Amino acid sequence: MTTLFTNISQLATPAAGPQRGAGMGQLHITENAALLVRDGLIDWVGPAAEAPAAANTVDLRGRAVVPALVDPHTHAVWAGDRLADWEAKLSGATYEEILARGGGIRSTMRATAAATVAELVALARPRLQALRDSGAGTTEVKSGYGLEFDAEIRMLEAVRELQAEFELRPTLLIHVPPETGRAEYVQGVCKELIPRVAREGLAAAVDVFTEKEAFDVPETRAIFEAAKANGLKIKLHADQFHAIGGTELACELGALSVDHLEASGPAQIAALAASDTIATILPGVTLHLGLPAAPGRKLIDAGAIVAVGTDLNPGSSPVFSTQLALALAIRLNKLTPAEALTACTVNAAHALGLKDRGSLSVGQRADFAVLHGADWREVAYTLGHSPVTEVWVQGEKI
Amino acid sequence: MTTLFTNISQLATPAAGPQRGAGMGQLHITENAALLVRDGLIDWVGPAAEAPAAANTVDLRGRAVVPALVDPHTHAVWAGDRLADWEAKLSGATYEEILARGGGIRSTMRATAAATVAELVALARPRLQALRDSGAGTTEVKSGYGLEFDAEIRMLEAVRELQAEFELRPTLLIHVPPETGRAEYVQGVCKELIPRVAREGLAAAVDVFTEKEAFDVPETRAIFEAAKANGLKIKLHADQFHAIGGTELACELGALSVDHLEASGPAQIAALAASDTIATILPGVTLHLGLPAAPGRKLIDAGAIVAVGTDLNPGSSPVFSTQLALALAIRLNKLTPAEALTACTVNAAHALGLKDRGSLSVGQRADFAVLHGADWREVAYTLGHSPVTEVWVQGEKI
Repeated sequence: MTTLFTNISQLATPAAGPQRGAGMGQLHITENAALLVRDGLIDWVGPAAEAPAAANTVDLRGRAVVPALVDPHTHAVWAGDRLADWEAKLSGATYEEILARGGGIRSTMRATAAATVAELVALARPRLQALRDSGAGTTEVKSGYGLEFDAEIRMLEAVRELQAEFELRPTLLIHVPPETGRAEYVQGVCKELIPRVAREGLAAAVDVFTEKEAFDVPETRAIFEAAKANGLKIKLHADQFHAIGGTELACELGALSVDHLEASGPAQIAALAASDTIATILPGVTLHLGLPAAPGRKLIDAGAIVAVGTDLNPGSSPVFSTQLALALAIRLNKLTPAEALTACTVNAAHALGLKDRGSLSVGQRADFAVLHGADWREVAYTLGHSPVTEVWVQGEKI
Repeated sequence: MTTLFTNISQLATPAAGPQRGAGMGQLHITENAALLVRDGLIDWVGPAAEAPAAANTVDLRGRAVVPALVDPHTHAVWAGDRLADWEAKLSGATYEEILARGGGIRSTMRATAAATVAELVALARPRLQALRDSGAGTTEVKSGYGLEFDAEIRMLEAVRELQAEFELRPTLLIHVPPETGRAEYVQGVCKELIPRVAREGLAAAVDVFTEKEAFDVPETRAIFEAAKANGLKIKLHADQFHAIGGTELACELGALSVDHLEASGPAQIAALAASDTIATILPGVTLHLGLPAAPGRKLIDAGAIVAVGTDLNPGSSPVFSTQLALALAIRLNKLTPAEALTACTVNAAHALGLKDRGSLSVGQRADFAVLHGADWREVAYTLGHSPVTEVWVQGEKI
């Protein structure tokens, strides 16, 4: 079955394959374009005047088309909320005071651990719908609020259930160390949790929060070795507050991505630039918490492969739009519009190990977003309202 | 005709009347509330258990209710775009280079001046719809891209036409001085344009851009005197880049509001705190241009009446969501959630001279927003997706 999408005012896309450094700004832009889809894949793309014939035709009425966005970093499954914590903090409460009255990350962890799979599914659904409305064709979702292994599994089961409605990539996140029995916990993660998740096919990758107040480098290394031994990819939260060596470890072990990077300095930037590990930046955290921005401009100038994600989560990034993350990366991390589109499409796909999407080129999946207007730059420029009117995945409107 | 709105999980509202300083944080919050509307006005509000009987009942299904937002500062009518300018600037082009290839504010001014009223209406409609989707019940719209008087009139005629679909307040903005014949232009504004706008009822207020590169204080004073002589209210763009005395003049003359204030220092803050003129801050400009934020926190601490608006415009604030402006004021100007809600409702209404809305209290218009969730703070917390599911104006769903 072939479908020809016609009357595309402007089609803008990065090339296929991860785009590094200056390559991130090199989009292919076709004015008055058409796109031929065969069995969910792109069969031909080019100027409308040269388009081949097709069984079906879809008129996109003079609107711009870009690849569907890929959100490579979300914590979209949680129960409870952090609204009271946030309001207290803005009114001057200390984190200790917030903890003393039952707030902090452990409050959402308790609520998440207490929720059933069906409850988690119902809570996550509108969040994933909001990301999709903003142009996301594929979304990563992490576990990590469960702590108890069974609760972690329930989070991943919720993601599996939502895969019937959304294109999702699940990640097992080892997020918060227990208050006691830390060594046993890490050993249990390696010997019990990771093998179980791999056996049940519940996650594609394992992620670790490597930070002064979370897991250290030796613990991270042990967890990564277990992940690799069980056939899972590895990812990392690193350099959010302190650069303690996580980025260097991830580059050494061939991680798919290192995410956050707000505290990365020249050594971490150089390590990422010299590797194929993708540097994923999360500007929503910068906006919400008022913390320093990750050095997006420096990473690109150094030659790294940069991706952008929402980091959607209740505590540090209530960003319910992958498109807003793209738009914020320009304002807060000093990417150009073209670089930000590359970061949120083909590079974000590679941050998930997905080589089949993120570029509107022959052989790739026909995952694309149709914008409200005729100029592709609206996807980067618009703040506060989705400039995306339609999302198509594998040639089907969703 | 009476309608009782029931099953409101939480109703949060500022009191009626402009709220100053510490008063901005004092919301009235009612858990499990009901709201009685008679002929478009609020007749009763309180705990559901004490609600009076009514002819009709509307079940709001456990969602939170806040006053409909008021957007007190937009330039929602324009033709052309600034996308190429923006991309060039982000790639390092100077403003002189952008001007040399036909860009800059005068490119949108030329396009706007060349457009018909019908074209301006069609272009503005989806922008106003986006603001309304984000919770705005009332929106101010300025002229100011026309320069030529007939083009200014066409912009205001477009606003008048859109008033059939939206609740709008039109403002005549004297925005950009002509390249030659400046004294004659100001004289024409005072003797010809303002009397004509007043006679035809095309605007409620006159606004001036007082800035080093725009109009100076004596010119502003002359324009304000003409506005007052013709029965129009006055507003001001001031202290955006330089504090040249506009704020002090506006306070002296009893302006409704002074807007921008990024460059306001202690003298301007003190003048606003001592006056009834509302200090309107515009955080979208801060985000989009990366310029300093207006001193929102200091203004409130000094006792000023602070409002927040989008400043929706193609060059410096592509913010298509009044709710995002509210949310940004917390992150960028350090307001609390309660202060930001007050700033975007009752204080914003007073910045437009409207005393009949912005507070869910007896006698006020029944203009309210129903949120997606059960906690009013979602209207302040959410980034990138509208937390507003319904907007009601004068008791009717729009």
